[in-house]
Amino acid sequence: MKIESVDFFYLSMPQIEDIGDGSQDALLVRVVAGGYTGWGECEASPLVTIAALICPMSHSACKPVIASVLGEKLDSPDDIARIHRTVRENSMDLLQADHALSGIDIALWDLLGKRHSEPAYRLLGYDRAYPKVPYASLLFGDTPQETLDKAKGAASKGYRAFKFGWGPFGRGTLQADIDHIVAAREGLGEDGILCVDAGTVWGTDVDTAKARLTVLQDKSVTWLEEPFHTGALQSYHALAALSGKVRLAGGEGAHNEFMALHMIDYAGVGYIQIDTGRIGGLTSAKRVADYAAVKGVTFVNHTFTSHLALSASIQPYAGLQEHVLCEYPVELKSLAYELTTEHITLDGNGEIAVPERPGLGMTPNIGALQKYLVDTQITINGRIIYETPSF
Amino acid sequence: MKIESVDFFYLSMPQIEDIGDGSQDALLVRVVAGGYTGWGECEASPLVTIAALICPMSHSACKPVIASVLGEKLDSPDDIARIHRTVRENSMDLLQADHALSGIDIALWDLLGKRHSEPAYRLLGYDRAYPKVPYASLLFGDTPQETLDKAKGAASKGYRAFKFGWGPFGRGTLQADIDHIVAAREGLGEDGILCVDAGTVWGTDVDTAKARLTVLQDKSVTWLEEPFHTGALQSYHALAALSGKVRLAGGEGAHNEFMALHMIDYAGVGYIQIDTGRIGGLTSAKRVADYAAVKGVTFVNHTFTSHLALSASIQPYAGLQEHVLCEYPVELKSLAYELTTEHITLDGNGEIAVPERPGLGMTPNIGALQKYLVDTQITINGRIIYETPSF
Repeated sequence: MKIESVDFFYLSMPQIEDIGDGSQDALLVRVVAGGYTGWGECEASPLVTIAALICPMSHSACKPVIASVLGEKLDSPDDIARIHRTVRENSMDLLQADHALSGIDIALWDLLGKRHSEPAYRLLGYDRAYPKVPYASLLFGDTPQETLDKAKGAASKGYRAFKFGWGPFGRGTLQADIDHIVAAREGLGEDGILCVDAGTVWGTDVDTAKARLTVLQDKSVTWLEEPFHTGALQSYHALAALSGKVRLAGGEGAHNEFMALHMIDYAGVGYIQIDTGRIGGLTSAKRVADYAAVKGVTFVNHTFTSHLALSASIQPYAGLQEHVLCEYPVELKSLAYELTTEHITLDGNGEIAVPERPGLGMTPNIGALQKYLVDTQITINGRIIYETPSF
Repeated sequence: MKIESVDFFYLSMPQIEDIGDGSQDALLVRVVAGGYTGWGECEASPLVTIAALICPMSHSACKPVIASVLGEKLDSPDDIARIHRTVRENSMDLLQADHALSGIDIALWDLLGKRHSEPAYRLLGYDRAYPKVPYASLLFGDTPQETLDKAKGAASKGYRAFKFGWGPFGRGTLQADIDHIVAAREGLGEDGILCVDAGTVWGTDVDTAKARLTVLQDKSVTWLEEPFHTGALQSYHALAALSGKVRLAGGEGAHNEFMALHMIDYAGVGYIQIDTGRIGGLTSAKRVADYAAVKGVTFVNHTFTSHLALSASIQPYAGLQEHVLCEYPVELKSLAYELTTEHITLDGNGEIAVPERPGLGMTPNIGALQKYLVDTQITINGRIIYETPSF
């Protein structure tokens, strides 16, 4: 097969709120080859990522991403690896290229899975997929009472694991943070797995993070996520030495596999969290999963958007039985929920199954998506170089 | 002062060649506040970086860069630090934001220097600027003979230091690479400082790089630059342990100060090369220079574009007397040369002086630039969100 087309669709809720909810817009990717269609999603600013797809070349290492994809041969996983490498070389100085590549890489695995009638995880080299225990991913309430109510609500829906993050956490007093953690634990009960996401709020400040360790330990928090900027490896390392049974988690900001490896090798995380829509798709994420397994670090997906993105994010560690936790967004905006016809749902054990359908096993709901489509046009010297494609 | 406007100008040569010459297009930045105008430049894909400036918000940590700059107070270096921090927080998930911030930060220092009638390096905290020894930055020839001719030509122009990079180097046989190194040394004579830039060609492959060490040592090469991908810290570390008097250099791909610190802390480079147009402007570059000085690593600018970018790239280490080498592009396209009215020129000692004029001391040559202006328009749902501004 030859890759015949690569199209990016900018989708958005009518209003974007100034909150930490990444499901408010989406960049859907469609790749066509040999009569098959693959779908992917970039976890990225849609407009900027569209520009990375089609911008004019600046020099030999700053080319538009599409130049390394269109017309390429696509018959096997080796072809995806080659395209992946070519994009990274030809667009090395184009920073946003990693985010654009991510959605394309996801679509290529989906397409190849459909072509070979195999789920993507099998093409990645796993014999079988193991069920995952999804944690309900929630924003902290504005007050501890709201956090308590959210926790009770989520606990009643059959989840075994929960993560609270963002909102006011880390932005007020130590006591306020303590109150939110206590409220979350109270709402969930003693048995629920509880994780906490600080959303990089402490920058590089180890002491402020350290002051929260006691309550995190007392309330049996499984991991403290992103206390620091993704790049603050020394701060992570210092806190990891003090955190005891509370392990550090991070990696969602990684936009290539090297950055994830640094979190494992230098930051001392116990959980490496990978967003396939940012790191370079399934190709990069699988390499990180392999490395994590060797190093005794647990792989977890990062997903705050659609079930297409969710399927894409689980495939890279579908076959790692011991790596059981899985991020599962529960407060999706309608756009993100309606993006797919199928959904990955919780069973009676509080587990989810990786789709066994070909590719990613998720079908974009074109009819529902029309109303979210953002009409976009980019013109250079009077020539239209991008306009919203048709579904 | 309040920041009244932030404008990006996309400039390009009429034809972009598929070669490693970053001077073929440019993204010029203009910031106006309190009746003063500051100028900067992003070393980045112009269209994609424009999109990062003005894209619609995706969520609270994925905002357009301009949202954190326009209307902000600007009276002191502390204000620049605050704006810098705000952009990084509010655009954390917008990958291209670092490149957009870079040109804005440069323009802010230029503007503040004009306001206080001080060169930027003084506002950065240096009492005086020391002269730098520019190395002529050249692409390898297609053949060793061409490399020899280029080296002879450059040596006749008064330079004391030279760097050859890219072109065929690392892409053919070991013998071909040896022939190019031998030719470069022969053309320069025994006394010229010679550096070699491998342009990340070996990815993570330490053995292939290692095979070149003997000729690099025999021909007294000062540094081997970017043998590997910027993220391949372990490969750098392994080669650094073997390279002896040939020191490793890298860091131009760093788009925040953390990445540069990793090169120093984990990769074992002897020279840290920083492009102010990528890393986050003078603010981030100065922090790296401070850290490098403490760690005994030599700071060097990375510049392959205009003399505005050159001035911006020298300011962060202008006051570090021992850090004497300076990248100086000698094969500039006309756009990059004509971008400024003033130029930084070689004196009889083979040295250059940091401009002593206010700010960066460089004036864009508006008259000359009109012919390079790329007319660009971005429309979202029928509303124009970007069009090329007037000079």
